[in-house]
Amino acid sequence: MEERITISLLLDIYGNLLTDKQQEIMHLYFNEDLSLAEISEISSTSRQAVHDIIKRCHKLLLEYECHLNLLEKETKLREVKNSIIEKLELLKSDTQESEKLQWIEEIKARVMNEF
Amino acid sequence: MEERITISLLLDIYGNLLTDKQQEIMHLYFNEDLSLAEISEISSTSRQAVHDIIKRCHKLLLEYECHLNLLEKETKLREVKNSIIEKLELLKSDTQESEKLQWIEEIKARVMNEF
Repeated sequence: MEERITISLLLDIYGNLLTDKQQEIMHLYFNEDLSLAEISEISSTSRQAVHDIIKRCHKLLLEYECHLNLLEKETKLREVKNSIIEKLELLKSDTQESEKLQWIEEIKARVMNEF
Repeated sequence: MEERITISLLLDIYGNLLTDKQQEIMHLYFNEDLSLAEISEISSTSRQAVHDIIKRCHKLLLEYECHLNLLEKETKLREVKNSIIEKLELLKSDTQESEKLQWIEEIKARVMNEF
């Protein structure tokens, strides 16, 4: 996966562990694709400080992932979820009874929305 | 939930974000139920330092949970998982065809083992 996208995903997951200011600067850099100079102006922070915050938080996000693996787990969960939904669709297409169809729909809804 | 159990569960989830020494002391205190004096002896650390580490890590674990809610999510996930398995069992008890039974078993196995 492209590094920028990975950091953006890690920011979604671990962003709350950063301060508001760190989150804002990382968001502007990795999601809005602004330059250091632009972020410096918006956040009233020196260009050097913006650079240091990005470097430090980049490292922090990778460390969190290294310790907790939440992005990896989320990616795996999505694959499992898709394969379960695929099987439920198979089951559904081969079922006529309305009560059973309702159970299958209920399972599908829970898998889709709650995992 | 009893505070000690909560901290022990949080330690399972976020323990990797602590240093090895912090993890060891928290483990001895919250899982092994040792006294500060006993931990002090085992870890060759002063009783006061053990006390400070426990206090600081206790706070850290609660802060991680406050920001990431992984314990809360895990608890919810377990409930959803149980309700899905219950529905799959209903479906299974009302199904005869062997191919369908196999699909249901496959879905059940994935829900049980991979979430």
